[in-house]
Amino acid sequence: MPPRGFPPEEFRARTDRAQRLMAREGIDALLLTSEPDVRWFTGFLTRFWESPTRPWFVVVPAAGAPVAVIPAIGAALMAQTWVEDIRTWAAPAPEDDGVTLLADTLAELAGRQARIGLAMGRESALRMPLADYARLQSALPAAGFVDATSLLHALQQVKSEAEIGRIRTACAIAGRAFARVPGIARSGTPLETVFRRFQMLLLEEGADWVPYLAGGAAPGGYADVISPAGPRPLARGDVLMLDTGAVFDGYFCDYDRNFSLGPPAPETAAAQAVLHDATEAGLAAARPGATAADVHDAMHAVIAAAGDPGAGGRLGHGLGMRLTEWPSLTASDRTVLEPGMVLTLEPALEIGPGRMMVHEENIVIRAGAAELLSPRAPRALPELE
Amino acid sequence: MPPRGFPPEEFRARTDRAQRLMAREGIDALLLTSEPDVRWFTGFLTRFWESPTRPWFVVVPAAGAPVAVIPAIGAALMAQTWVEDIRTWAAPAPEDDGVTLLADTLAELAGRQARIGLAMGRESALRMPLADYARLQSALPAAGFVDATSLLHALQQVKSEAEIGRIRTACAIAGRAFARVPGIARSGTPLETVFRRFQMLLLEEGADWVPYLAGGAAPGGYADVISPAGPRPLARGDVLMLDTGAVFDGYFCDYDRNFSLGPPAPETAAAQAVLHDATEAGLAAARPGATAADVHDAMHAVIAAAGDPGAGGRLGHGLGMRLTEWPSLTASDRTVLEPGMVLTLEPALEIGPGRMMVHEENIVIRAGAAELLSPRAPRALPELE
Repeated sequence: MPPRGFPPEEFRARTDRAQRLMAREGIDALLLTSEPDVRWFTGFLTRFWESPTRPWFVVVPAAGAPVAVIPAIGAALMAQTWVEDIRTWAAPAPEDDGVTLLADTLAELAGRQARIGLAMGRESALRMPLADYARLQSALPAAGFVDATSLLHALQQVKSEAEIGRIRTACAIAGRAFARVPGIARSGTPLETVFRRFQMLLLEEGADWVPYLAGGAAPGGYADVISPAGPRPLARGDVLMLDTGAVFDGYFCDYDRNFSLGPPAPETAAAQAVLHDATEAGLAAARPGATAADVHDAMHAVIAAAGDPGAGGRLGHGLGMRLTEWPSLTASDRTVLEPGMVLTLEPALEIGPGRMMVHEENIVIRAGAAELLSPRAPRALPELE
Repeated sequence: MPPRGFPPEEFRARTDRAQRLMAREGIDALLLTSEPDVRWFTGFLTRFWESPTRPWFVVVPAAGAPVAVIPAIGAALMAQTWVEDIRTWAAPAPEDDGVTLLADTLAELAGRQARIGLAMGRESALRMPLADYARLQSALPAAGFVDATSLLHALQQVKSEAEIGRIRTACAIAGRAFARVPGIARSGTPLETVFRRFQMLLLEEGADWVPYLAGGAAPGGYADVISPAGPRPLARGDVLMLDTGAVFDGYFCDYDRNFSLGPPAPETAAAQAVLHDATEAGLAAARPGATAADVHDAMHAVIAAAGDPGAGGRLGHGLGMRLTEWPSLTASDRTVLEPGMVLTLEPALEIGPGRMMVHEENIVIRAGAAELLSPRAPRALPELE
């Protein structure tokens, strides 16, 4: 296992990069409210975000370290990070749940006429009550609240080697768990039992927690890929797919594996081969200077040649502190790939009405060819008893 | 294990209740964006919300069933619920990620001058990009967007017997896992190993997934209750606390247990007894007609009498589809308790600087005395080797 956490120098370097972009865009302070944004700047790692009761704020000023404005219950843990200026209130406080403290902090750090950047765009959500956001705006009537989504995306989409190491570890953990699937899933095992046991394998192999598991099992292909498991037992002829986002030190893997219950039907084996080839094409295309769309197009060409011209949509995405991040591997996403970006390649193929298969691998863009972070799935479908 | 899911009649009854409150408040449509709000009205259950990429919308009109406005990837699963009107778009679509479809749906169902209610208040967050919310408002310039937080709170804070059954099952699962802690935790076991093994126990005992585990272990009491586990091995004299939110069929338990590594020190045993007595006092006070503050005050009196006058804060909270819900058991929360409300009782005691203990039980308010959903913790601290 690699070490946990990151040295203060890494957070300082991240903050420096942010402040250079802020200066370029005329942003005087960043206001962060979401778990990954707060953690990216501070290292504050807790599962307590599962509780929706309390808002948490971090302010990144134009210069100097971030300032935490948080519920008192988090002060001890925040004090273990590199953040030194920690301002707390006794949340929940229905009359004023940190809003005045936050407004005063923003005014002190950036002035009452500051341009305050926050995530307002794609794939973001403001993690504070909308009414409190309105109160914050009223408390700082001369300030401007502007969209900093593209700035935050640019910062976070290129991972440091330390971050890549975490994702590599999460991928290796899942790889060891996938290798043990024949021991937990066979004809007659209910899918919900497979899900339960697979999560146990992920933990046993070293996952800190398992925020995501989806999949399906049905004859010759599954109908959708986001359902929870039902009680139906696996049966010969089924294709079983398990798709997991397991976490190590706050970073996700996100990939799946397919299995055949007994020997696969010819069309199932053929679909597996097409998806394998599409993934190879995506891997070959995933180089610095190519766009997200180029990688999509490379995979889509293989799928379309196999007779599924409709299979477009999103064939992969960014990966990191979130199960899914930007860019999207779609026909229209012109994000230029850079070394250090971590992506999933996720081609899908419709086999028949209500029957599909999906493959997924995790990669990091390197100066030459991309590096696989997940152990490459075999071209032939693994069989379960 | 109880059955999973809820019959259409339950969702129809929930929607009827909502529509009566909407009529009373002059709200023409509810706009839902969060996982629990969407699920409470529809039954749409998936872990895919872990992906922040796509927004999801449900509109509750003044009469009739809810209408789903969702990414196409969710259509097959939504079609398994009682919702029949399902409108989809191919998300992610950066130029228009469902906003026009949502605006048209709201206009069709409630008119262009509708008063549209959404959660803006305490413990809520809008799960869509802020910029898209602004676009929605621009697309419906004559509509009013109003706060429906108190309406949603009133609806969801009283659980049906079917919901209570799910929480009871989650509590029983955690109870069986807690009973097996002596088998996974002893002097020398690193805390992070205890966390990993305890999650495996929860799954083995029937949890669908484990969204929350926190805790601590330190000599004579722990410093905070939201930290992830570190590598330090348990040692004799430690107090170990594990606090879990495990899920069955989409409903949480949320309670903790304390253990002593070897015989507890006298002050540790005394603290355990005080917390046990405080919980008893909370249990006795938790009756219909009492307020959340009354229950808080009953627990706080026991803690204060034991010499910790400062221990106030939140001594419990609502529980359901979220790890933490309203009301808050604080000195100021005047919510009147009703049969069917599920609550945690969570008294805390500071033993010394940086050393505390916290107890937690889960209960449901009944016509007479409250019903314990978690198996009551013993008054004497259980010992580990």
